[in-house]
Amino acid sequence: MQARKPTWRPVPFTQVHIAGEFWAPRLKVNRERTIAAQYRQNAETGRIDAFRLAWQPGQKPVPHIFWDSDVAKWIEAASYTLSTHPAPELDAMVDEVVGLVVSAQQPDGYLNTYFSSVQPGKRWTNLRDCHELYCAGHMMEAAVAHYQATGKRVLLDALCRYADHIISVFGPEPGKKRGYCGHEEIELALVKLYRATGEERYLRQAQYFVEERGRQPYYFEIEARERGEQPGTNWYGRPYYDAGNFSYFQAHIPVREQTEVLGHAVRNMYLYSAVTDLAGELNDPELLAVSERVWDDLTLRKMYVTGGIGSTARNEGFTGAYDLPNQEAYAETCAAIGLVFWAHRLVQATGESRYADIMERALYNGVISGVSLDGEKFFYVNPLASDGTHHRQGWFDCACCPPNLARLLASLGQYLYSTGDDGLAVHLYAQGEARANLPDGSPLTLRVQTRYPWEGQVQLIMGLEGPADFALRLRVPGWCRECSLRLNGQGMQHSLEKGYAVVRRTWQPGDAVEIEFPMPVERIEAHPAVAQDRGRVALQRGPLVYCLERADHPLDVRQIALPDEATFQARFDPSLLGGVVVIESQGLAPEPSSWEGKLYRPCEASPGRNVPLRAIPYPTWDNRQPGEMAVWLPRA
Amino acid sequence: MQARKPTWRPVPFTQVHIAGEFWAPRLKVNRERTIAAQYRQNAETGRIDAFRLAWQPGQKPVPHIFWDSDVAKWIEAASYTLSTHPAPELDAMVDEVVGLVVSAQQPDGYLNTYFSSVQPGKRWTNLRDCHELYCAGHMMEAAVAHYQATGKRVLLDALCRYADHIISVFGPEPGKKRGYCGHEEIELALVKLYRATGEERYLRQAQYFVEERGRQPYYFEIEARERGEQPGTNWYGRPYYDAGNFSYFQAHIPVREQTEVLGHAVRNMYLYSAVTDLAGELNDPELLAVSERVWDDLTLRKMYVTGGIGSTARNEGFTGAYDLPNQEAYAETCAAIGLVFWAHRLVQATGESRYADIMERALYNGVISGVSLDGEKFFYVNPLASDGTHHRQGWFDCACCPPNLARLLASLGQYLYSTGDDGLAVHLYAQGEARANLPDGSPLTLRVQTRYPWEGQVQLIMGLEGPADFALRLRVPGWCRECSLRLNGQGMQHSLEKGYAVVRRTWQPGDAVEIEFPMPVERIEAHPAVAQDRGRVALQRGPLVYCLERADHPLDVRQIALPDEATFQARFDPSLLGGVVVIESQGLAPEPSSWEGKLYRPCEASPGRNVPLRAIPYPTWDNRQPGEMAVWLPRA
Repeated sequence: MQARKPTWRPVPFTQVHIAGEFWAPRLKVNRERTIAAQYRQNAETGRIDAFRLAWQPGQKPVPHIFWDSDVAKWIEAASYTLSTHPAPELDAMVDEVVGLVVSAQQPDGYLNTYFSSVQPGKRWTNLRDCHELYCAGHMMEAAVAHYQATGKRVLLDALCRYADHIISVFGPEPGKKRGYCGHEEIELALVKLYRATGEERYLRQAQYFVEERGRQPYYFEIEARERGEQPGTNWYGRPYYDAGNFSYFQAHIPVREQTEVLGHAVRNMYLYSAVTDLAGELNDPELLAVSERVWDDLTLRKMYVTGGIGSTARNEGFTGAYDLPNQEAYAETCAAIGLVFWAHRLVQATGESRYADIMERALYNGVISGVSLDGEKFFYVNPLASDGTHHRQGWFDCACCPPNLARLLASLGQYLYSTGDDGLAVHLYAQGEARANLPDGSPLTLRVQTRYPWEGQVQLIMGLEGPADFALRLRVPGWCRECSLRLNGQGMQHSLEKGYAVVRRTWQPGDAVEIEFPMPVERIEAHPAVAQDRGRVALQRGPLVYCLERADHPLDVRQIALPDEATFQARFDPSLLGGVVVIESQGLAPEPSSWEGKLYRPCEASPGRNVPLRAIPYPTWDNRQPGEMAVWLPRA
Repeated sequence: MQARKPTWRPVPFTQVHIAGEFWAPRLKVNRERTIAAQYRQNAETGRIDAFRLAWQPGQKPVPHIFWDSDVAKWIEAASYTLSTHPAPELDAMVDEVVGLVVSAQQPDGYLNTYFSSVQPGKRWTNLRDCHELYCAGHMMEAAVAHYQATGKRVLLDALCRYADHIISVFGPEPGKKRGYCGHEEIELALVKLYRATGEERYLRQAQYFVEERGRQPYYFEIEARERGEQPGTNWYGRPYYDAGNFSYFQAHIPVREQTEVLGHAVRNMYLYSAVTDLAGELNDPELLAVSERVWDDLTLRKMYVTGGIGSTARNEGFTGAYDLPNQEAYAETCAAIGLVFWAHRLVQATGESRYADIMERALYNGVISGVSLDGEKFFYVNPLASDGTHHRQGWFDCACCPPNLARLLASLGQYLYSTGDDGLAVHLYAQGEARANLPDGSPLTLRVQTRYPWEGQVQLIMGLEGPADFALRLRVPGWCRECSLRLNGQGMQHSLEKGYAVVRRTWQPGDAVEIEFPMPVERIEAHPAVAQDRGRVALQRGPLVYCLERADHPLDVRQIALPDEATFQARFDPSLLGGVVVIESQGLAPEPSSWEGKLYRPCEASPGRNVPLRAIPYPTWDNRQPGEMAVWLPRA
């Protein structure tokens, strides 16, 4: 197999300014409300104080095994915010929390509130269930973010000590435990720590954790026996999901042998993000092939049209191929975020637009559906239909999703652009500006004018110090049937490489490229093996999937069918949901009187009654009065 | 509210002979193979020996809390068989088992293997979970059956003693426990015991159990506290289904206040069977109204087209209205059987054909799907679609369904006919003969000639000793759009009362009535609120629901769509599945190549490719090579 080194490197979010009516309000709310609200939630629930290690037996609440990760993600999100929007007050808050975190570190480097206060003496005895290395990983990501944002090394140094402690405990060497975490995360975090510090041992440890996973004898069985428990049973003594073969943890077979996405969704996303990182860092084409093959299983058989993943709450993860129930969907916000993480890495590794297509699909739909427009309420679960009882909440006992959204949005800029050996690539289109260095070392300031995703016209203006030779790659979205490109007002031909429109030339300062992606309303159908979507269509316009919400209709929208011959009007409504393009059409609703006293009947050719239909972007649902919602509309 | 006394009394199965190509082979297999196989299963698994009370701590297997009920149902089924088909060898086997059962009775009348050997001293401490009164009820049904089949009183007497013991323990009187069983069954059993013995105290005790259910303070909470447990948690210390409000047990509110079918499906069926019995015995129109109102919730919102009920394995029961997943359906065989029990009682109480319609639907589809054509393998779960991995088994750890099928089939005759104040009613059509007494006391032997359910012609010939005035009521099935009636070869008018075609006249010996129910293939659609069936049709011909099975098709049948303009040929194939009418048509299958590399795509007007389609009766699926199955076909 031929080695492939990564094609692109992301332009850091600190070099990217995102403006425009779609993202700017969301990012502002994230900075100004979400970060503050999540600090309050972390503080009020005792998560921050837990680092004082002052918990006494009998005291409520009892610190939970994954509390550390919630605080870590808040530090990470706040640090990203400080990188782009310095704020002394927030800086001081972060310093205070960081100080508390560091104060909880044990003399040997160990750093975990639960096992330092609630269960002292039990550390590293249950990697399968206790999220210990997972929490470590999140704190490493926080440490790297804090260091990069502020230049302060205190948390980074603490986490390097912790990482060194972990290296001393886990590994293939004699005398070490051959363990790995039940919930992946530390693998990708150690890669980040390696990149931030240059210390190769962190990369090697990430590699160890990935390579050891799923090997026999199973570590989870070894440690269960050491605890005096039956291997393959959970805390309640009942069998683990998936018949106890550890596929719930992606630990049933070695990672290099895996071909399917199985078990817990978020764990998969974090694992394969790390696998893709390692493929690049180690220049290991086999690992990249694993990542791409599992990706295909996910995106061709187990992904919602919103980019949500994980069909069931049972295992917070995957079921069989093509099993995508809508109202019962789990589609955890964190899983869609994890999908963005993985997609982003595959984009860099391969330069192929199909990964960016999924990144865009998830980001615009199943990720940002997770947060309310006011930035203070969150979905953990993102179904594609609702009976009107599913609503966002301010926080959760298991609060992984809210701070995950916060850190993603606070670093959104990094997903838009990459630089490579021959120039710059644009993966996602948003009004704003990016600063990058060209292959010859000269600076480029790219100014982007667009109303994307509401309109498909994008203008890109080259801010250059002088003429420069480089290739500009503009992703042609997978949803786009044809696009046209103009240079300084003149139509021009372009080549299409790996799904990107490529213009190679000597650019002049001020050169303007215009590209247009027409955005008709598309009826989307799912693969015929998806029973739940058979005979149904979803509406998509540009990257946005639409839904019907009760607030716009006089009846349960799950019953409204869309005639095949219906036409659409797309119209920007500045007063609705912060300003959205709505899709208007004519639907058909069943005549309730014709169903009175019946659950089944011989088919009747009853057309039903016409109802005006108004679809709104999926991520904006549940921001008005409660009611039913549906993405997949029956065809009529 | 005006009192209504029951309209009809069933003609006992001992007076009914069922012949014909549909039922006779099934009943023969039940008698000759199922009863014997289930004896072996009961014996080999230790269920029969458990009555020796010889279990010692540490010994495997440990008798289970509901083992007694499996043996009871076997005695009941075997006794019914002895009633219609005397067999000395089986009689001796039953006597031996009955002797063992009686030998396990305690001096005070108590009779339960689990609490007499495994947990002595714990009797009546956990009515919620331990099935103690449930097992008692099944043994009472067995005792009545054994007594009526053989005239032997040994089991009946023992169970009367047990019933008297139960009366001494439970009741509203001071000093008694105000308990009732977590799993209903004893209520209907006590009514049977009352009817067999004439002892009114058994009827009163049944009434007590029904009336006490759901009253506050909750007995399940009282006994949980007495056990030192947290009320509302299960054996694992986790909350009960349905937020611990006891609706899982139909014990959240008093029965007379109930309006919805909630929780565990079988428990509902047994409870409302008893409620309907009591409504008649006590001449209590309020209780009948409760039964009919909950029935409507079930059959208008929560029933599969097969008569299967209970949408989910989670609570072995009901979810929300119109939530009827097909492949994930639970639709336990016992629940469909219980639906037949309840329907049968409502038929007698009201004389309305709509209850017999559901009885027929369940019996011909969701009940007998539970047993293989060879009578030795059983479904516990009866889904309406399969990925090819769902198959019948010989037995189950929780083995309620196989002997429940055996006892139903062994007593099938009782569901066909009733007598009332003015004559005879025919609810279900089957080749054979029935003997009944007319209102004037004279005997009628009704001979029925029909190929029902394969053909809709039914001829009924009056075997009379002389002219007789009475009304003959022939149910016009709900699936039948129009029917014609002839008397001795002459067309005649008939009135329609409560869904029955009624002929009132002075009948002469040998009078022949012919009624014809045309059986076109019907496309059935579900209420538009059933998301899982939207845009789909099921095929029904006569009472039988059809399905596609992989064995007849070159591809996964779940993907085959049925064009609205497709026509059908119904054809009897004597060589297939013991002889069935198959439905043949032309289906459409998606072109797999057009979906390569895609999970979603803009709708294409691709017609797909034609595939010959052959549907078989739903209850006969999984009797050939394993493969996918589907009831609801996408419309094309």
